[in-house]
Amino acid sequence: MKYSKNPFKTVKTVSSELVSKNAKLLTQASYIHQEVAGVYTFLPLGLRVLNKIEKIIREEMDKVATEVYMTSLAPRKIWEQTGRIDTVDVLMKTEGANAASQAKNSTGYILNSTHEEMVTPLVQEFAHSYKDFPIGVYQIQTKFRNEPRAKTGLLRCREFRMKDAYSFHRSAADLQSYYDQMKTVYMTIFERMGLGESTVMALASGGDFTTDYSHEFQTIVDAGEDTLFIVKSKNLCFNREVAPSQAPALNDTQEELKPLTDVEGVGMIGVDELAKFLNITVEKTTKTLLFETEKGEVIAAAVRGGYDVDEEKLKKITGASSLKLASAEVVKKVTGAEVGYAGPLNLPDSVRVFFDESTSNRKNFECGANKTNFHTVNVNWDRDIPMPEKFYDFKVAKEGDLYPETGEAYQVVKACEVGNIFPLHTKFSKAFDFTYLDEQGKPQTLYMGCYGIGPSRLLGVIVEKYADEKGLVWPKHLAPFTVHLIDLQQSEKAQQIYDTLQSAGIEVFWDDRDARAGEKFADADLLGIPYRAVVSAKTGDKIELKERTVSETKLVTLEELIVLCQPQS
Amino acid sequence: MKYSKNPFKTVKTVSSELVSKNAKLLTQASYIHQEVAGVYTFLPLGLRVLNKIEKIIREEMDKVATEVYMTSLAPRKIWEQTGRIDTVDVLMKTEGANAASQAKNSTGYILNSTHEEMVTPLVQEFAHSYKDFPIGVYQIQTKFRNEPRAKTGLLRCREFRMKDAYSFHRSAADLQSYYDQMKTVYMTIFERMGLGESTVMALASGGDFTTDYSHEFQTIVDAGEDTLFIVKSKNLCFNREVAPSQAPALNDTQEELKPLTDVEGVGMIGVDELAKFLNITVEKTTKTLLFETEKGEVIAAAVRGGYDVDEEKLKKITGASSLKLASAEVVKKVTGAEVGYAGPLNLPDSVRVFFDESTSNRKNFECGANKTNFHTVNVNWDRDIPMPEKFYDFKVAKEGDLYPETGEAYQVVKACEVGNIFPLHTKFSKAFDFTYLDEQGKPQTLYMGCYGIGPSRLLGVIVEKYADEKGLVWPKHLAPFTVHLIDLQQSEKAQQIYDTLQSAGIEVFWDDRDARAGEKFADADLLGIPYRAVVSAKTGDKIELKERTVSETKLVTLEELIVLCQPQS
Repeated sequence: MKYSKNPFKTVKTVSSELVSKNAKLLTQASYIHQEVAGVYTFLPLGLRVLNKIEKIIREEMDKVATEVYMTSLAPRKIWEQTGRIDTVDVLMKTEGANAASQAKNSTGYILNSTHEEMVTPLVQEFAHSYKDFPIGVYQIQTKFRNEPRAKTGLLRCREFRMKDAYSFHRSAADLQSYYDQMKTVYMTIFERMGLGESTVMALASGGDFTTDYSHEFQTIVDAGEDTLFIVKSKNLCFNREVAPSQAPALNDTQEELKPLTDVEGVGMIGVDELAKFLNITVEKTTKTLLFETEKGEVIAAAVRGGYDVDEEKLKKITGASSLKLASAEVVKKVTGAEVGYAGPLNLPDSVRVFFDESTSNRKNFECGANKTNFHTVNVNWDRDIPMPEKFYDFKVAKEGDLYPETGEAYQVVKACEVGNIFPLHTKFSKAFDFTYLDEQGKPQTLYMGCYGIGPSRLLGVIVEKYADEKGLVWPKHLAPFTVHLIDLQQSEKAQQIYDTLQSAGIEVFWDDRDARAGEKFADADLLGIPYRAVVSAKTGDKIELKERTVSETKLVTLEELIVLCQPQS
Repeated sequence: MKYSKNPFKTVKTVSSELVSKNAKLLTQASYIHQEVAGVYTFLPLGLRVLNKIEKIIREEMDKVATEVYMTSLAPRKIWEQTGRIDTVDVLMKTEGANAASQAKNSTGYILNSTHEEMVTPLVQEFAHSYKDFPIGVYQIQTKFRNEPRAKTGLLRCREFRMKDAYSFHRSAADLQSYYDQMKTVYMTIFERMGLGESTVMALASGGDFTTDYSHEFQTIVDAGEDTLFIVKSKNLCFNREVAPSQAPALNDTQEELKPLTDVEGVGMIGVDELAKFLNITVEKTTKTLLFETEKGEVIAAAVRGGYDVDEEKLKKITGASSLKLASAEVVKKVTGAEVGYAGPLNLPDSVRVFFDESTSNRKNFECGANKTNFHTVNVNWDRDIPMPEKFYDFKVAKEGDLYPETGEAYQVVKACEVGNIFPLHTKFSKAFDFTYLDEQGKPQTLYMGCYGIGPSRLLGVIVEKYADEKGLVWPKHLAPFTVHLIDLQQSEKAQQIYDTLQSAGIEVFWDDRDARAGEKFADADLLGIPYRAVVSAKTGDKIELKERTVSETKLVTLEELIVLCQPQS
């Protein structure tokens, strides 16, 4: 491609709305263009990279699944059938945009954010017998999600490209076997993206679907929205949401027990402020939250100051299907105090109290006094409050925490989820009453799995991973072009080189503009094409070659350049 | 692909909702699957054909435009800027599907039905100078349109694939030159689809954008929703909506003038019923419709019985920007009669009366009497009603009509629009205030064109064109596979042939099921793969080859089969 034929030149400045590295650089280099927050057009160069990413995904997926192309519009009834029409909090719907359109067709549709609701009844129409399974299908498609914030460029979009695969099995064991195979397929894909070394498989929540973990493929990158907790000795990695966590010890075992006292601290609610006021460490404070369950029961959950309560963990521990923070009225009724002064001491018997393990092994700690503006200090287990039969782990894990099983400190890193695989088990087959007939003609439970990768997000992650201060940097086989040809003498030589390279099957981007050398070099760095080839009066018969990631240049012949740039097989 | 690996087997019966040939056959052969009316999933075989169609379109479009990938979601404001948010009667919009989703992001989006509103401000950001033009960009993408009815399978869908291109020019002449080039590109595409001989370029309305015609590429096919009027001697073709039409003469010039009479015919409104009642031909009746313009003016439009009024033609003639049928109250006020008895005689002077040319050259004709239940018969020009200064053409053309310029009868055919090209002129550049700076630095008017082809519709048209009573028939280079291999002896031979053909780069579909020969043969006919290759005990070393469109079989060697099936370059 000649630069002159690309209508979308690089731009000097980008909107201050674009705060992420990938959005900034990709916009500046005109690979993408934001249309509205979280919605990006792919311009010619960006589309070339996206196509290469999708081609690799397709090649690997073709080995284990059959490609289809499902629709974005779905009838409401299938989403009602699983109940997810009300619970998927990024789901979008459509209707006619004006009166004339609504008059033409008054049906409203759901805009699929994921395709379990589509693929399950689809496969159900075709597959009935044990002979028909296992089945694996996939698609690469545009998805729509009503994301609340969209500030991370291609890492989280409202409209984005997705590869989603779904599998159907006669048994949990067969699902597991396919699921394990998919782990290998996924790692191969990320290796081919140049992300193999920086991508780990993390355990994540199985959602409502299962008590098993799901698995996320997480690329370690500073811009990542996820936090991973890695156990080096076990080669284990947890997403923060499921990381079992043990708070580091306080080393206060030698402390002498001090007398229990109520201290007035008007309006002291935040633990940092309170600790300062009481002249104790934050770790000596206790945060006690009251929740109402779906049955109207009130429970108290206490964590050491500095931690947050992980409601998902707490739900599993308490057996509640939903938890909401107790209202001010309920707090008042239960504790006798305004919000902010609850503590585990002297609560009514009707309130079940749960203690996080971070609250154990402390001496002379603080609790809310259940009296407005008052805090009880120098609380001690057994002396002031009975030691509970069991301490739990329902805090949000944080840096410094230990993996309970080995007691070693987690390595904590930021990462971006580039893929996930999910054992759906029977969640959707049950919702659609999808069974198969076994050898005896008896209906049997069907098992499903789903498997996602976001090609457009991957593109953003590759930028976050590889780009430097001068601009984009692409792995060779994903770059929009292999050679960035610059002609400083405006001679016929560049045309010959361009033609020869193209005939040799090498993808060339030729900056044929009448522009300053400095501008062309800066653009070459910005665009990130692997080989910069400069022709000028100085280079004579040769070509000055520079790789994007090294600073040295060298003179090569055209033949040498061709050999260097041969497409990788 | 092995049949056993395709989860989507052929089906015996399809929903009675699927009435079109393409929807029926493609569903039965499991190329597509309807999710909701007008919304089709592409199953593996259908996707392979769709991909081949899109590849051909891409190859030809790459010669004249640069590929991008714009988004489906658009901010409302760009559609408000052109005013089309209220007028595009197939436009859809989105919002959160549930309360949680709406709380996360309350922004509503437009789901682009076409991309002029996207591409114009996009290109405007990048192109400013006369040096930047011409620009041609295109994309291949899923589009959403809230079509009122969706009964023709892939010919008219609510979600469908579309190639849309947009061009930007410094002058009307440059637009015209690119536009003419696009005609050639389009015909090449349709030729490569195997539709060259049956596809014609028809003149169609330029819409509000222009007084020029737009051009439709219409494939002549019985299932087509469009009616074309062809002037053989001129090699001209009109879409019905713009066909200039002259009604055939009545041959009543020798008739003697009969006395003008009012006849009571209670409730006689329809012209067929009326003609029968009056014992005259339908052509002697007159249909007079009253319209109100946007200014509140009432006009009368009279056509010969048997014709309908084309409101678009009438709008241009009357200069009205909108016309609506007059209400019963207005009709009563103007004619003194109930609806159904209006006629051009004795209307108030305030009502402008327009006569279609089909009402001229008649003797002793009928008109509504402007009196409830009464009709005036034996009306004659000049004797009873002044001959108007001018007769117009505002009727809907119909079979039997003549092309006015040559007086020859139109050839009338049904056709399906497979592409259209549209001179947008300054409609969108003006809406977005998009100008360019000329050599003198002065802002100048920018001209645009747009160019569409529907790949999924094309797939449906190819089925309508080629399928026979046994099933689908594919042009060789569009077929999902080239060879349909059937093994009747379940030997290792089939595996060898399968492997050898695949190694030779030939796409093979191998029916490896344990099924009856008759079932396999019927499926082969249904799927429509060009070459059926049968291996059985009877065929010995050879392979029994049958082309889908011929009934004879012949025995060939594997080498001969490979030569026959080599991919066309």
